[in-house]
Amino acid sequence: MGDRIEVAVLGATGSVGQRFVQLLDGHPWFRVAELVGSERSAGQRYGDVCDWRISAAPPAEVADIRVQHYEEPVRSSVVFSALPGGIAGQVEASLAAQGKRVFTNARDTRMQPDVPLMIPEVNPDHAAAIRAQRERRGWKDGFIVANPNCSTIHLVLALKPIWDAFGIEQAIVTTLQAASGAGYPGVPSMDLIDNVVPFIGGEEEKIETETRKLLGDYGPDGFRYADITLSATCTRVPVRDGHTEAVSLKLRRAASVDDVVEVLANFRGRPQELSLPSAPTRPVVVRTEADRPQPVLDRNVERGMASIVGRVRACNVFDVRFVVLGHNTIRGAAGASILNAELLRVEGYLD
Amino acid sequence: MGDRIEVAVLGATGSVGQRFVQLLDGHPWFRVAELVGSERSAGQRYGDVCDWRISAAPPAEVADIRVQHYEEPVRSSVVFSALPGGIAGQVEASLAAQGKRVFTNARDTRMQPDVPLMIPEVNPDHAAAIRAQRERRGWKDGFIVANPNCSTIHLVLALKPIWDAFGIEQAIVTTLQAASGAGYPGVPSMDLIDNVVPFIGGEEEKIETETRKLLGDYGPDGFRYADITLSATCTRVPVRDGHTEAVSLKLRRAASVDDVVEVLANFRGRPQELSLPSAPTRPVVVRTEADRPQPVLDRNVERGMASIVGRVRACNVFDVRFVVLGHNTIRGAAGASILNAELLRVEGYLD
Amino acid sequence: MGDRIEVAVLGATGSVGQRFVQLLDGHPWFRVAELVGSERSAGQRYGDVCDWRISAAPPAEVADIRVQHYEEPVRSSVVFSALPGGIAGQVEASLAAQGKRVFTNARDTRMQPDVPLMIPEVNPDHAAAIRAQRERRGWKDGFIVANPNCSTIHLVLALKPIWDAFGIEQAIVTTLQAASGAGYPGVPSMDLIDNVVPFIGGEEEKIETETRKLLGDYGPDGFRYADITLSATCTRVPVRDGHTEAVSLKLRRAASVDDVVEVLANFRGRPQELSLPSAPTRPVVVRTEADRPQPVLDRNVERGMASIVGRVRACNVFDVRFVVLGHNTIRGAAGASILNAELLRVEGYLD
Amino acid sequence: MGDRIEVAVLGATGSVGQRFVQLLDGHPWFRVAELVGSERSAGQRYGDVCDWRISAAPPAEVADIRVQHYEEPVRSSVVFSALPGGIAGQVEASLAAQGKRVFTNARDTRMQPDVPLMIPEVNPDHAAAIRAQRERRGWKDGFIVANPNCSTIHLVLALKPIWDAFGIEQAIVTTLQAASGAGYPGVPSMDLIDNVVPFIGGEEEKIETETRKLLGDYGPDGFRYADITLSATCTRVPVRDGHTEAVSLKLRRAASVDDVVEVLANFRGRPQELSLPSAPTRPVVVRTEADRPQPVLDRNVERGMASIVGRVRACNVFDVRFVVLGHNTIRGAAGASILNAELLRVEGYLD
Repeated sequence: MGDRIEVAVLGATGSVGQRFVQLLDGHPWFRVAELVGSERSAGQRYGDVCDWRISAAPPAEVADIRVQHYEEPVRSSVVFSALPGGIAGQVEASLAAQGKRVFTNARDTRMQPDVPLMIPEVNPDHAAAIRAQRERRGWKDGFIVANPNCSTIHLVLALKPIWDAFGIEQAIVTTLQAASGAGYPGVPSMDLIDNVVPFIGGEEEKIETETRKLLGDYGPDGFRYADITLSATCTRVPVRDGHTEAVSLKLRRAASVDDVVEVLANFRGRPQELSLPSAPTRPVVVRTEADRPQPVLDRNVERGMASIVGRVRACNVFDVRFVVLGHNTIRGAAGASILNAELLRVEGYLD
Repeated sequence: MGDRIEVAVLGATGSVGQRFVQLLDGHPWFRVAELVGSERSAGQRYGDVCDWRISAAPPAEVADIRVQHYEEPVRSSVVFSALPGGIAGQVEASLAAQGKRVFTNARDTRMQPDVPLMIPEVNPDHAAAIRAQRERRGWKDGFIVANPNCSTIHLVLALKPIWDAFGIEQAIVTTLQAASGAGYPGVPSMDLIDNVVPFIGGEEEKIETETRKLLGDYGPDGFRYADITLSATCTRVPVRDGHTEAVSLKLRRAASVDDVVEVLANFRGRPQELSLPSAPTRPVVVRTEADRPQPVLDRNVERGMASIVGRVRACNVFDVRFVVLGHNTIRGAAGASILNAELLRVEGYLD
Repeated sequence: MGDRIEVAVLGATGSVGQRFVQLLDGHPWFRVAELVGSERSAGQRYGDVCDWRISAAPPAEVADIRVQHYEEPVRSSVVFSALPGGIAGQVEASLAAQGKRVFTNARDTRMQPDVPLMIPEVNPDHAAAIRAQRERRGWKDGFIVANPNCSTIHLVLALKPIWDAFGIEQAIVTTLQAASGAGYPGVPSMDLIDNVVPFIGGEEEKIETETRKLLGDYGPDGFRYADITLSATCTRVPVRDGHTEAVSLKLRRAASVDDVVEVLANFRGRPQELSLPSAPTRPVVVRTEADRPQPVLDRNVERGMASIVGRVRACNVFDVRFVVLGHNTIRGAAGASILNAELLRVEGYLD
Repeated sequence: MGDRIEVAVLGATGSVGQRFVQLLDGHPWFRVAELVGSERSAGQRYGDVCDWRISAAPPAEVADIRVQHYEEPVRSSVVFSALPGGIAGQVEASLAAQGKRVFTNARDTRMQPDVPLMIPEVNPDHAAAIRAQRERRGWKDGFIVANPNCSTIHLVLALKPIWDAFGIEQAIVTTLQAASGAGYPGVPSMDLIDNVVPFIGGEEEKIETETRKLLGDYGPDGFRYADITLSATCTRVPVRDGHTEAVSLKLRRAASVDDVVEVLANFRGRPQELSLPSAPTRPVVVRTEADRPQPVLDRNVERGMASIVGRVRACNVFDVRFVVLGHNTIRGAAGASILNAELLRVEGYLD
């Protein structure tokens, strides 16, 4: 694996940063060469300064890397960003201006008019916006590609095959989100022992707007948002990993429950055609048992890269309703960025 | 309190039965005189046989009562039933035939065409169905009055003032229900540590049908169900007590968020007019903080007898959405039956 | 209750501060007149600035009090301190120097040689150290009285009757402590969902040293620590309130299990003799069931002011072993300070 | 892998049975050929009848196997038993009499005077008891080998190197055990949401007695129990998998904390010498951080086959204390039986 592309991980000691490091361990195309952190960690050995919380210890290969500071120059041509929203936008733009290919999990640039917000199975053609982005910003080699919010991505993976087959006019969604979505330390345990918090700041708006960009078109005039109206209520529940979402859909064309199950189960996209290293065999897995999906049982299906749909049934009010679950820090965050990078490598954007 | 009406509690050792015993302890109008159980407990002292799980120990006043068997005659004229669904219907009918006034929490009779399904603040006039019930069944003094399912009751308390003021055409509801709703032993801990179960057998249908009876009319031709369509998805979350529900409503007449908050906050019903002993001062309590209601903070407001509404906001898809929370074994079960009994006593049905 | 003594609560917006406010609500002898906080909250209405987390909302009586800053003068003659360790010592000494009677829950002064560390049932005579404290520090009316750490207090309430009756040479203790012991935000939920943290900084040392002061004597030469050796291992478990402790004791004199149960169950102290307002009827409650005490069932016994002991049995290695549980923010913190103040009022120290 | 030994799993649909099936999936020496269950499941496809709770679905290779009834003849020569205690003893003896080599996780035979209770790293020589067992019972090829209780095994893995190096006179242990140890449905969620149960029936006695057999000798006169006294208190905490144990030891010979750490970290046994397929590289892993081991971080170290020790420090009362954690259904149950079978295969007992 000597020819792997060297990559830098920004925000490497945080919760999503750790997930990047874990998922890139042994990756056939990418090799973690640089770990970038804040003052707190810069200059120290990653294995010492990172409070690793995914398993017993970080991969041996990266434990010895010295964490570098944001202001130090980045050598790698590919950058994965797990920076917090608010800070990310500026740092990422500066790196892209230096020619870096930035794959970001941060919210800052997702809705910018020249940034592709991508899920490879859903809108791989949005990569074309990179050209306009470079032109508009005067960047030569660099670019920024974003992936959606952790709840949005699993919702949209489930919506996409239905959208293509039957059209969707309206969607009402309630999420039951895992604690890891808030990072570490994140949500106090006093808020999640014997409790639910029925609010997550900014989350509902993300679902309601990002979905429209993802299901929309990209053309000469830029992004045209999809004509779908969404309403989301987001709650935090005492679960470590795995967001659960209850969804009701008003379709544009009639479809039976069996029709919907069929398009969901048969859904395949570019990552599957291209057999990308991180691609799930099935991006959407349909369960037919009455009580699935469940976080502890289903969040790691397809190594956390699939969205699991269950309880597909007719909706009294709309047309169809179901429950979708997905791993929020794998497919919902770091894995999403990595799959974007894999797609763009195959399509020549990393050359 | 020497003139209190003697009451019997059926299913007294179970989870809802214990709640009846607790709420009736020191009640000004009712006194627990008989505790009825199954073979397992019959003949034994309640304090010995009941695995009391509400607090450290059952009220001293009842601990010495000998649990009697279902087949033994009941002396008390008022019966509170916490019998499990499936068994309840037959036992309760037999007691009503013997002249007992039965207030049941079980599902069996709720949708029967001559049984009032009541929430005193919502449809106190449905008590009039008792006359038809007696005639039809040939009962002289006895009757059966049911209260709704634990999720339905808090939903309908929040819907009622909106229904009256603006009309409701459609409702989409997702519940996050507490473990105590399944009784004891109920849900295995392996299903609720780090997990959500997105299904509760029969629960969605109950919400979708009981609501229509509760908001409907009772007249010479019997019950006329309300013209409202509901879609419910019910999930179980790692919470002891307190069901949380995310609700989106399509109204019949335009209303601002402020209008909705106002009718919710000002809602009062017969129990408040009559100052019934178990009546909450405010049946619906509105919270305006971004992250309320929450089970641990709000479930015991108004001694567990209120429904707490928060996050009232405009819905992109429908008109208004909010989150409602309520204690599922107090107002959602035993307390509901007791409030029904208090209302009917004042209205002369227990004489 | 017009003649109640006015008191100030320091650190009033924090977790223990809130508990002081709650427990003092309606107190027959004390009235919360001043709430003291940091820059963040000073100048604002308590009801607005305090993120109240005990119940739905703070008592109406205090919600309107304007939080004052540490540097503003305190008018009340009695001060309850919920200040964090590290800060508390200096602030409290300054107030005592101004003549305030300070009852502190902080760790800073507990082991100081002229500060009584008190549990009213255990060592009420230690109050005599106040005279030496005043002399040594040149204080006229003011003083500082501390209560022990939340784990220590329940352990020592269980040890005291055994200590008196049979002597104790050695104790090995493992604690399973609730999240509220770390305040708010405190322990991240990612540390307590499906997890145990087998370490709490400084806690083991507190148990091992405070116990010796509490069970020791106070005489002309100051405090003489008790001749007992303790070893503690402290863990954090996914519980909101209520510390559980497994204890094994080597006694100095032979005692049967029944002997131990008897002295525990019959234990009464000065607060019980004096019928102090916050005193539990029984400071130690013994449960004989196989699986008690349990936090959810037993932590609120005696309004959270008792220590609940169960599983008293012979120890293969030592002499006797048992499990003790107690509410960590009531008897383990704010309630402990209040009971100290009640005792000292009766004994004339507040005049 | 055509020459793999065919094995049968008894109690295959239960919690430990599932773990056997999972761990044997792809095993180089053993192949699951038969799955044995009760009336409820017999005759049905394993994939249909087993409520698989380890991951999303059982291994494809076994899903199609028809579950056979206990009374049907078993063809495989090796049997792994996950039968419940009480039932196991008789069924296993009957199979051994038919020539089967039975590796059991059940409690029934563990303390029988001719049954080796084995941990391959601790007492591999106890296998010699098989000869006496066969003679005494008149069995030709069959035998029963037991593995210890899930808490005992991790305790003893940590005790063994200390026992060998310094001797151990006394041990006091408090366990914090995971819910999966009680199987499924097992512990009700109402017992483990915001709660601890300080009692597990029979568990303390198992730790106190099994340890003495494991650390003891086997010779011509049979088993001689080790001269060590133990006291255990067992509690159940809200954790899915991974038992945590706080241990204090009185040693026979002086040892520093460093000495103890060294013997723990360097501990290797027969499975490591033989590189058995399921053997952990290090049977005991020592962590030096202040707050480890923790269930979510450490239970899967060495694929769940190691015991993780942390917080090794001097004990005020005894000599040394530490915390040990291990996966209770892998090394603590099914993995323990499989490792026993691997050892005995290499030593010729399966020929």
